[in-house]
Amino acid sequence: MEKPKHHIFVCSSFRPSGEVKGKCSKKGSLDLMPYIENEILDRGIDALLTSTGCMKQCDNGPVMVIYPETFWYGNVVTEDIVDEILDALENGEAATEHLL
Amino acid sequence: MEKPKHHIFVCSSFRPSGEVKGKCSKKGSLDLMPYIENEILDRGIDALLTSTGCMKQCDNGPVMVIYPETFWYGNVVTEDIVDEILDALENGEAATEHLL
Repeated sequence: MEKPKHHIFVCSSFRPSGEVKGKCSKKGSLDLMPYIENEILDRGIDALLTSTGCMKQCDNGPVMVIYPETFWYGNVVTEDIVDEILDALENGEAATEHLL
Repeated sequence: MEKPKHHIFVCSSFRPSGEVKGKCSKKGSLDLMPYIENEILDRGIDALLTSTGCMKQCDNGPVMVIYPETFWYGNVVTEDIVDEILDALENGEAATEHLL
């Protein structure tokens, strides 16, 4: 299969039953998903965006993790922060200010 | 933060609303989660297990992805296959037979 260059995971606080209930979703992680998806497309980044269940960093939510770079970001609450993270990713760097 | 050495993602077919509806879950991916979690603990692997929404490999579901190794596995339907994958991971290798 063709693998994406970057795989971006955003915590959506899914419980095993699928119930959306947890800090990341309460802080708006799901609301940011369409923006992130559009930015990936607009910028032409070879990246797959995937929502996740809890990644056990609840106090720092909403949490975003990018592999294979292994960048863990916390408090991703605004479109501006998403932009900073994607700007850095395009430059092959981490947005250090937002790293966990 | 202390990052896990391996991050194991298993598709649970979550829809954005949280609804569990899709091929990976229908084929039993959620049923395997407790087994995978227990195996990680029993083996003492430094790994975080996270469920995900669709990873767009539905025809090959249930899908499991391991980062930062970037191992994409398909048709992870039995405990034996999980064992093969974790055996290989402990040896720093991929379980090539199940790679996508």
